[in-house]
Amino acid sequence: MKIARFSTVAGGDPRYGILDGTDLVVLAGDPLFSGFDTLDERVPITEVRLLAPVIPRSKVIAIGRNYAAHAAEFGNDVPEEPMMFLKPNTSVIGPGDAIVLPKQSSHVDFEGELAVVIGSVARNVPEADAAGVIFGYTIANDVSARDLQKKDGQWGRAKGFDTFCPLGPIIQTEFDIATESIQSRLNGEVRQSAPFTDIVHGIPALVAFASSVFTLLPGDVILTGTPAGVGQLADGDTIEISVPGIGTLRNPVRAA
Amino acid sequence: MKIARFSTVAGGDPRYGILDGTDLVVLAGDPLFSGFDTLDERVPITEVRLLAPVIPRSKVIAIGRNYAAHAAEFGNDVPEEPMMFLKPNTSVIGPGDAIVLPKQSSHVDFEGELAVVIGSVARNVPEADAAGVIFGYTIANDVSARDLQKKDGQWGRAKGFDTFCPLGPIIQTEFDIATESIQSRLNGEVRQSAPFTDIVHGIPALVAFASSVFTLLPGDVILTGTPAGVGQLADGDTIEISVPGIGTLRNPVRAA
Repeated sequence: MKIARFSTVAGGDPRYGILDGTDLVVLAGDPLFSGFDTLDERVPITEVRLLAPVIPRSKVIAIGRNYAAHAAEFGNDVPEEPMMFLKPNTSVIGPGDAIVLPKQSSHVDFEGELAVVIGSVARNVPEADAAGVIFGYTIANDVSARDLQKKDGQWGRAKGFDTFCPLGPIIQTEFDIATESIQSRLNGEVRQSAPFTDIVHGIPALVAFASSVFTLLPGDVILTGTPAGVGQLADGDTIEISVPGIGTLRNPVRAA
Repeated sequence: MKIARFSTVAGGDPRYGILDGTDLVVLAGDPLFSGFDTLDERVPITEVRLLAPVIPRSKVIAIGRNYAAHAAEFGNDVPEEPMMFLKPNTSVIGPGDAIVLPKQSSHVDFEGELAVVIGSVARNVPEADAAGVIFGYTIANDVSARDLQKKDGQWGRAKGFDTFCPLGPIIQTEFDIATESIQSRLNGEVRQSAPFTDIVHGIPALVAFASSVFTLLPGDVILTGTPAGVGQLADGDTIEISVPGIGTLRNPVRAA
């Protein structure tokens, strides 16, 4: 199923729906907490505004250097254990929302990533059981102020600005990562393209590792790392990240 | 006012109260969202279990190297701008709760800190207006797996384990940091002792800086850095952090 979180074009409270052709079948509530009961209501997707499909109540866990070719483009090795950092839920925006380039940075990069959405409370989950705590998959852009990563050492600021975590367009609950790939396009030009088989620490390993450190809560998101080909964003750009089976996360870019 | 979050000793839903002598005057709801209306009910503080006085809906922002003597004890300078990292809300525990030493680390340190609790939505707050977005102050322990900080580079894991952010015992809404100090005692022995005048980037500067990066939400917490004297925790230890006017945050320590 493809699950969308949406509002009217004018705004208003978020609602949830299951994509059925070009319609959304409206759900009774947030499926992470109240299941897939539907209302007797359908809305054409063209008549809504898609929102970030989830706003984590707790955390966005991001994984650094999880594709060998991307680690190499900055002269790094892939770490033996996954390298985790956190992005705040205030950095999350939805499809179509603008990524705002902060005045504090002169070098902001896109990083297209597959994102795992956690579906249940999870602690010390074995790799073999990881699938049972995953609600679904969406697309993320781990927007990063490259100059501030270097200046600060810790990435709390460089990766945490408001608008630095676009998510969407929907959550796909049935997804076989082994057969899929990710592509990022900057102003239409392909910049990142990799199969998910290039991921070093795979999804079950990431869920097991993250849940050995943190209690994972429903709605927590794990960004699984970016492939080679990251690049700088400028005012007026459009950055698109596509994963077949999920869709395209498209965001305009503007200066603060 | 001293604001407590508490449950019955047996557990149950959190409630809020204003400390009045040895009693809690019970509040109608979470004062961060519903003000200070009281119910016609008083509970002796000895008959409740104090909980972490706030569970952030969004983020715990922690500041590294914000006392010169602490920066120096690890051979670092105080950064020109505050160095920010994030701790997840799943790391928060309350007074009396056990800090659990994870098997992944062989060196876990305490770090006693003053914590600022944000009271309103805040973005780009000037230093002069910082007081207006502060709800109050509490005490924090920025528990840190020193070996994993070094191994990982990024501190998401080392500072983010469950139980690694004790907060409490209460939130003090009227507090003059200029006249106060912090003291940490490990098994009764004084290990950290510093006046808040030793803080390099002061509270208004931290609120202004953090809010220039992140939208701050009510209940967000800023840990203001730790003074010199941090030290290692072992199974069976008791770590106490005291700030006159707020109280003592006391946590036992146990192996996983």
